[in-house]
Amino acid sequence: MTYCVGMQTERGILFMSDTRTNSGVDNISTFRKMFHFEVPGERCITLMTAGNLATTQAVISILQERGKSPEERSPDIERAPSMFQVARIVGQTLREVIAEHDGEGQTASSTFNATILLGGQIKDGEPRLYLIYPEGNFIEASDDTPFFQIGETKYGRPILIRAYEPSMSFEEAVKLLLVSFDSTIKANLSVALPLDYHIYENGSCTKGRIGRVEPEDPYFQEISSGWGVALRDAFSNLPPFTFD
Amino acid sequence: MTYCVGMQTERGILFMSDTRTNSGVDNISTFRKMFHFEVPGERCITLMTAGNLATTQAVISILQERGKSPEERSPDIERAPSMFQVARIVGQTLREVIAEHDGEGQTASSTFNATILLGGQIKDGEPRLYLIYPEGNFIEASDDTPFFQIGETKYGRPILIRAYEPSMSFEEAVKLLLVSFDSTIKANLSVALPLDYHIYENGSCTKGRIGRVEPEDPYFQEISSGWGVALRDAFSNLPPFTFD
Repeated sequence: MTYCVGMQTERGILFMSDTRTNSGVDNISTFRKMFHFEVPGERCITLMTAGNLATTQAVISILQERGKSPEERSPDIERAPSMFQVARIVGQTLREVIAEHDGEGQTASSTFNATILLGGQIKDGEPRLYLIYPEGNFIEASDDTPFFQIGETKYGRPILIRAYEPSMSFEEAVKLLLVSFDSTIKANLSVALPLDYHIYENGSCTKGRIGRVEPEDPYFQEISSGWGVALRDAFSNLPPFTFD
Repeated sequence: MTYCVGMQTERGILFMSDTRTNSGVDNISTFRKMFHFEVPGERCITLMTAGNLATTQAVISILQERGKSPEERSPDIERAPSMFQVARIVGQTLREVIAEHDGEGQTASSTFNATILLGGQIKDGEPRLYLIYPEGNFIEASDDTPFFQIGETKYGRPILIRAYEPSMSFEEAVKLLLVSFDSTIKANLSVALPLDYHIYENGSCTKGRIGRVEPEDPYFQEISSGWGVALRDAFSNLPPFTFD
């Protein structure tokens, strides 16, 4: 499995992804699931992928090859005029790659399925965050639903629902994402460190901060053990239950 | 969906189940998912069910009818000599009911599947807690894995992992279960109040406390809003993240 979160705040879009891939429980590898496309000052686009690794790598490679040969005629996410058009290209590419290996056409349970989070900004446009389905269609984040999760989404969802604030600073938002990832990692073997993150600042149209949280990262360890203690404290401070 | 938890502590076994059943999102009903079999002072057995409602109701009805006609020869969980034998009977009944409607035999994805949590004690035996699979086989809780969840298990798991203590009082354990249920209910439409609970005290071999938490229950509302505040406080008290 995988866990990726894309989160819009008033200041920008945060992306975080784990790096574990597994086929069963005994074939575990580390793969990057976050990819960037940038024309500095003009556009910055980030993709995160969950699902069949062969599918997602093929999609990213196709998108990258198109970018590298500008004379080629196929659609190119580094030239598309809007984030909506970028999402359409990525969705179409994803749909085609799945269809290629999936003789029967796309179904929700296909082995070759994958889901993609796409976010970023193109100059003169708004910053956008999309969740792209295996069928190639997609939905966009909004004020009401400002974050998307893909992969192993359930364990880390309650804290996001409860602690997210649109006015968060980037630092607070990273902290929130780390807590959400920590809850997931604690409960599920198929999600693991290192974690990749990207912090896109609205209006910059350049990459901004990109980093990786390694397993031995002291801040992550502090969050992980601190959150366990904090949860137990919060729990014990709740009013006691009494039988009537 | 459904959410049920069975939890062993040093003092006894706690059972909690929600009451929502749904077929799609527009066919929602309230059904009890917790059932008791008792011979006071001799045995107390509790079952909680998740999965296809027709299957689980049939299983419970078969078990109850057998109980009501003692002259009948079929195995009877009110006469079985041990909790292990009770689990075998329940597992076998579950398997038979599924097989009856499922021409092709049991598979993990069968529409008619169901899962059962079974716990209790028979005089002179230890208190036991089992998780019974649709195939009729089962696993038993232990010191290392003292609780089982069935149904929509993921949202409510992190707090159980982090705050469970074998030495908890019944009051603390009920509080923990309510927090776990609250996290699940907040995140998932298919789990809802009222919640049924049963608190079995080790060695009693009688039902003990049985109750229902209604949606307007003031303590549950206090826990639900208090937990949101407590989580946000715990989160803001974690050390701040800083970019290098």
